[in-house]
Amino acid sequence: MTDSTADSDAQLTAITRAVPPLYVGVDVGGTGIKLGIVDDQGQTLAYRRIATLAERGPEDAVARIAEAVEQLLAGVGALGAQVRAIGLGTPGTMDIPAGMLVDPPNLPRWAHFPIRDRLAEATGYPVVFSNDAAAAAFGEFWLGSGKEYPSIVLLTLGTGLGGGIIIDGRSLDGENSHGSECGHIIIDSSPAARLCSCGQRGHLEAYASATAVIKRTVEALGDHPDSAVAQRVAGGEDVTPLLVAEVAEQGDAFARRIVLETADYLTIGVVTLLHVIDPGAVILGGAMTFGGNDSPLGREFLERVRSSVRRKTFPVIAERTTIDFATLGNRAGYLGAAGIARESLARQRP
Amino acid sequence: MTDSTADSDAQLTAITRAVPPLYVGVDVGGTGIKLGIVDDQGQTLAYRRIATLAERGPEDAVARIAEAVEQLLAGVGALGAQVRAIGLGTPGTMDIPAGMLVDPPNLPRWAHFPIRDRLAEATGYPVVFSNDAAAAAFGEFWLGSGKEYPSIVLLTLGTGLGGGIIIDGRSLDGENSHGSECGHIIIDSSPAARLCSCGQRGHLEAYASATAVIKRTVEALGDHPDSAVAQRVAGGEDVTPLLVAEVAEQGDAFARRIVLETADYLTIGVVTLLHVIDPGAVILGGAMTFGGNDSPLGREFLERVRSSVRRKTFPVIAERTTIDFATLGNRAGYLGAAGIARESLARQRP
Repeated sequence: MTDSTADSDAQLTAITRAVPPLYVGVDVGGTGIKLGIVDDQGQTLAYRRIATLAERGPEDAVARIAEAVEQLLAGVGALGAQVRAIGLGTPGTMDIPAGMLVDPPNLPRWAHFPIRDRLAEATGYPVVFSNDAAAAAFGEFWLGSGKEYPSIVLLTLGTGLGGGIIIDGRSLDGENSHGSECGHIIIDSSPAARLCSCGQRGHLEAYASATAVIKRTVEALGDHPDSAVAQRVAGGEDVTPLLVAEVAEQGDAFARRIVLETADYLTIGVVTLLHVIDPGAVILGGAMTFGGNDSPLGREFLERVRSSVRRKTFPVIAERTTIDFATLGNRAGYLGAAGIARESLARQRP
Repeated sequence: MTDSTADSDAQLTAITRAVPPLYVGVDVGGTGIKLGIVDDQGQTLAYRRIATLAERGPEDAVARIAEAVEQLLAGVGALGAQVRAIGLGTPGTMDIPAGMLVDPPNLPRWAHFPIRDRLAEATGYPVVFSNDAAAAAFGEFWLGSGKEYPSIVLLTLGTGLGGGIIIDGRSLDGENSHGSECGHIIIDSSPAARLCSCGQRGHLEAYASATAVIKRTVEALGDHPDSAVAQRVAGGEDVTPLLVAEVAEQGDAFARRIVLETADYLTIGVVTLLHVIDPGAVILGGAMTFGGNDSPLGREFLERVRSSVRRKTFPVIAERTTIDFATLGNRAGYLGAAGIARESLARQRP
């Protein structure tokens, strides 16, 4: 290396230190992949959603992610040197230290694919790998409902029931990438307990996920032939959490009972989490929050969880712990993936 | 300051850096206080147990702890400058960041006492404050059954059921000093669930603590008048876990059922902990482990927990997570308190 090369290297280093750092957040789902260019303050400078096209396999997706990242970066006029890292979140199961997908039910044919290293090779940027639920939790922790608290638990109520736990700014991934699996807390240990998607009985997910709400509603429908739910089903509609919510909003007693019982089941899991983790906030996200803060039913659901939890925990926790809805919606995943990447780099550089 | 003072200060610094660091571990219980001088490798150089004499109040205890610490240090010829910190563990409830006892049931009249700062004033050493269950967990993590793992859960089966969770070398204290309260995991959410000492229903402690074993045995005794337990009770003995264990060792079916059911209840809490924390090891300690590794019954109890957990969790966790007895006995508390102090200082000095 000549002196002038060394000089220009030093200049380049000086320049890249002066430009603001950027992170890329990538949130891989079964049908869509969300990508965002995120700055140090968590502002999204550019966003795109591409199709997962899971059936084409992971190599194809990695190539399309890399292409989209380059286009997004070019679109905001970013220098490559500004990009500190890509944060990549994927659905489980996974081996986080190895950077591998293990057996993701939503991504057939992607099992045992070394997605972290392949994306790093395809883009030239370092990739920090995380679980999608952990990424969503980190998003809420960094920029959403959890931003005031050192530690939070996020419960994502969707088809399944996902969990993310952030303690003092770090995601609780566990020794086997199975930490924060809050959907698999046992809330009913009786032999008649409901069957979970994982094959075990009595898990929170088997009571408070969308799938569980549908199942519980369908099972109880026969005993409530006069309910508005039964009438709409007789009219040819499928039972969905949205239908239950709509009908409950209109005052149907049966639908309202389903919603409030869901809050009560959720409470059992939340209380156990409060006693194990004792976070500053428990945040409820996902599609199945009965309209969330925008709806009277959603607010009633939240109030029911709050008041039931308060009655079932220690006074200090009841008084101090916040229970609230998530605020980032489906942006939490890519934002949190970027945030985990940012935080991971900050830890490496003392 | 003259130059010669500066010189001798520098010399003193050099000398104190050269001598091996020492920590003092103090484990405060309802009846006894254990103290140990512990070196950087976790070796105990000197040990003493003094009476708590709780009724005399905390100031009296602090003065006697300070005196015992000075005597122990003098006994091993330690220089004051070698002592980096005192690690102090006390029973809850407490406010760890404030260094306060809040309302410890075992220490009446000690409520709202600023024990951390008072002990620091009385001894002249910095004091690092922790929950006694967290200290015991850190002891096993540093020097006992947990020393091979980055993260562990310790369940202490005694009069109550205590928990300590260490994640990547740090105790999970929670935002309100109520983290790791594993005895208060809900394992039965039915209205008929057992009442816990905390006033709530269905907690693990209400099923698998010594108090719970006694209660469950006494309740079932009427249905088993021919059991050896019933005969010994008829002979004037009280039901204790030790009596149940003795009789179970001799083959009494009823007593054996009580022991194995305790393992099954414990399993429910352990599975929930595995799915939330995913630690490298779950360690069972405390007086009520039915003889532990030294007894065929203890080993059968452990094997029952292991096999039940294996059937109820994810394959990766079932395969990789260790479940074992604690090895430090009642030394875990002062050793872990010293270890937490050591680890806390290491974090402060990058």
